[in-house]
Amino acid sequence: MNSRRVVIVGAGFGGLQAAQSLADSGADVLLIDRNNYHTFVPLLYQVATGQLEPEYIAYPIRTILRRFSFLRNKSKVQFLMAEVEQIDFSGQTVETDSCVITYDFLVLATGSQTQFLGVPGALEYAFSMRTLEEAIAIRNQIYSCFEGAIQESDSSRRQQLLTFSIVGGGATGVEVAGAFVEMLRGHLRRDYPTLWQQVRLILVQSGDRLLADLPKKLGTYTYKRLHQLGVEVYLLSKVTRVTFESLHLQNDEIIPTATVIWTAGLEANYPTTSEEVSSANKGKLLVHPTLQLLEQPNIYAIGDLAYTEQHGKPLTGVAPEALQQGVAVARNIQRQFRGKSPEPFSYFNKGRLAIIGCYSGVGKIGAFAFTGCLAWLMWLGVHLVYLPGYRSRLLVLLTWLHTYLLRDRSVRLILFMKER
Amino acid sequence: MNSRRVVIVGAGFGGLQAAQSLADSGADVLLIDRNNYHTFVPLLYQVATGQLEPEYIAYPIRTILRRFSFLRNKSKVQFLMAEVEQIDFSGQTVETDSCVITYDFLVLATGSQTQFLGVPGALEYAFSMRTLEEAIAIRNQIYSCFEGAIQESDSSRRQQLLTFSIVGGGATGVEVAGAFVEMLRGHLRRDYPTLWQQVRLILVQSGDRLLADLPKKLGTYTYKRLHQLGVEVYLLSKVTRVTFESLHLQNDEIIPTATVIWTAGLEANYPTTSEEVSSANKGKLLVHPTLQLLEQPNIYAIGDLAYTEQHGKPLTGVAPEALQQGVAVARNIQRQFRGKSPEPFSYFNKGRLAIIGCYSGVGKIGAFAFTGCLAWLMWLGVHLVYLPGYRSRLLVLLTWLHTYLLRDRSVRLILFMKER
Repeated sequence: MNSRRVVIVGAGFGGLQAAQSLADSGADVLLIDRNNYHTFVPLLYQVATGQLEPEYIAYPIRTILRRFSFLRNKSKVQFLMAEVEQIDFSGQTVETDSCVITYDFLVLATGSQTQFLGVPGALEYAFSMRTLEEAIAIRNQIYSCFEGAIQESDSSRRQQLLTFSIVGGGATGVEVAGAFVEMLRGHLRRDYPTLWQQVRLILVQSGDRLLADLPKKLGTYTYKRLHQLGVEVYLLSKVTRVTFESLHLQNDEIIPTATVIWTAGLEANYPTTSEEVSSANKGKLLVHPTLQLLEQPNIYAIGDLAYTEQHGKPLTGVAPEALQQGVAVARNIQRQFRGKSPEPFSYFNKGRLAIIGCYSGVGKIGAFAFTGCLAWLMWLGVHLVYLPGYRSRLLVLLTWLHTYLLRDRSVRLILFMKER
Repeated sequence: MNSRRVVIVGAGFGGLQAAQSLADSGADVLLIDRNNYHTFVPLLYQVATGQLEPEYIAYPIRTILRRFSFLRNKSKVQFLMAEVEQIDFSGQTVETDSCVITYDFLVLATGSQTQFLGVPGALEYAFSMRTLEEAIAIRNQIYSCFEGAIQESDSSRRQQLLTFSIVGGGATGVEVAGAFVEMLRGHLRRDYPTLWQQVRLILVQSGDRLLADLPKKLGTYTYKRLHQLGVEVYLLSKVTRVTFESLHLQNDEIIPTATVIWTAGLEANYPTTSEEVSSANKGKLLVHPTLQLLEQPNIYAIGDLAYTEQHGKPLTGVAPEALQQGVAVARNIQRQFRGKSPEPFSYFNKGRLAIIGCYSGVGKIGAFAFTGCLAWLMWLGVHLVYLPGYRSRLLVLLTWLHTYLLRDRSVRLILFMKER
């Protein structure tokens, strides 16, 4: 069998898993990403709220790949740090900002990006939280607001600096709100004793409940818990405009706020292609049940980029889906090597967990829904186990122990860097 | 006794120590810094070479101040994050970008900045290493060069990307060179197996020996050790020009290099003042033996900002000098509170250590000069003890154990941020 070249674009959960699963396939595998590290997205909110060092949740891709080849001698996984500019179906090439690469099989795993839903000012003034850079920018903003507020003599401007708004009541919005309360009750109270009680924390959700992907009673619990923690939750509230100093709602309410964190929408982040490909809602690519593109049998799309259904309902875009799809495409590509036809993907749902913070969370495993401290602990445990690298795992565990035992956080640098 | 206001500008070693020593003096103390964190400068080179997380060597100033007041109930140390724009002697005010502050006593501890010695192109193309941002920029540059080199088909351009030059043969230049060798022999060899042997590492020194502040035999040892480690050391070589792709020497040699790290010169980083103050070489302010400015008895200058001598020789600008001066000005200001006259400062030299890396260092304690692994271990030990915060200390220790036992480094992110 000739060595075939499999190119994987994107080193998120799906792409990295596909690379690992293909490591001993005998194929030449090339993984492309614009960063030289893999970001553990589920813990981004802890970077944004100053709990974790950015380096703990970002893992150098070459180290991860080296780990594959240590275990599997035959591994031929290479890495290229580059920006993909176009994919040419007829020539079977991927054009990057530095070179052109040919492929026999292509796995697209470029994930999603923030969608501002056409709200005026959101792109310019709201903070998105999809990358490590963006999470650090939120951390800088939060601490800058406090340092600004302590010097501010005008009380309405000070209140504006101390009002933090989160748009979107999904898992990310809830996580950020809860982690913010933890910050407030912990070191912000000690560092800014005159300010912390003036802080307003606002969570705006367009639908009638929080965590819409989960059973209704979990959303209700989350609402109550956040309310208890002092978060002002606005349900059935659409955002109509964002400015550098306020958030406008559909009912004409204007909230003076210097910080708007946008977690409300995602859209597929797909590369430019030479020919049009069929896409569904939010730009997600339509795929066969085997995860192949409708038009191209040697191209697969996985993770947030692909529109996939299970039992007639769309998948929700969580990491386990991308991981299982990474394994599935690796298997299907190897079937194609051997002249067999690919098999349909089926998602095995182990359950869902969401963390609220302050020792509470919610979860659903099978038909069993539960809330409280057990869900909180399970969330932390599961994410610790999935974090790549034993060193990161140890450091994150130590940091969490430090945070929850001493209620202190050490990452509160306001650190601006040069632009790329 | 009325409460007097002491304003300290700069939260480096000297300024922070002065604040701590004044914490229980009964005075209102205000510490001003442009950052919300204190940078542990001696370990910056380990951030630049991807060994330590930036957060480990940067400590939030408010946390440090809180620690003073926990120990000392009377503490009245406040913090202001601001950029100082001018100091007005006649009005006794410090003008910052956000407010104007009056003082009774003023401690200037604004340290030093890189001096490019008028070399054309140095400011534009050389990397300075005085701040956390600059150290991260060097880390980004090193890993970007490797990622660029692996994609580069032109061999001379590849060699240029893989040639790293360090200008300056003082402690910082030697540290960076040694740490770079550690990187090369450690994970760079594993991450870039086809490249690491092509790397050229160049150290350019204008004088006839390295570590000119220390006894000659220590400089000679350092030269031999670096040579052994594969570093090309150029002595008696002046840099005449830096471009984005080369380093020009006085003997007309042109070294093609994409990275020039500039550790060659420092100058005082003094704020604008309403009236001229007397200064010495490199812009350092002239002070009385009591550390008071010649013209202003209620203004002190300490650390790298001040020109001070001991036994007729100028001090060398290391952290212990600034720390001891911080204690001394606090004592002198308290003497002035009580109507007594300030006392002259005298530096107690506990010794000097410099680290080369790869298990070697040099040291001098009293008349005793020593080299090798003992000096290396002592350097690490001393710096661990002086690092602020037990958490940083633990994490740095774990990281060093990890680095030296496994020869791996985990901080190799190429992470660009938004500009301030």
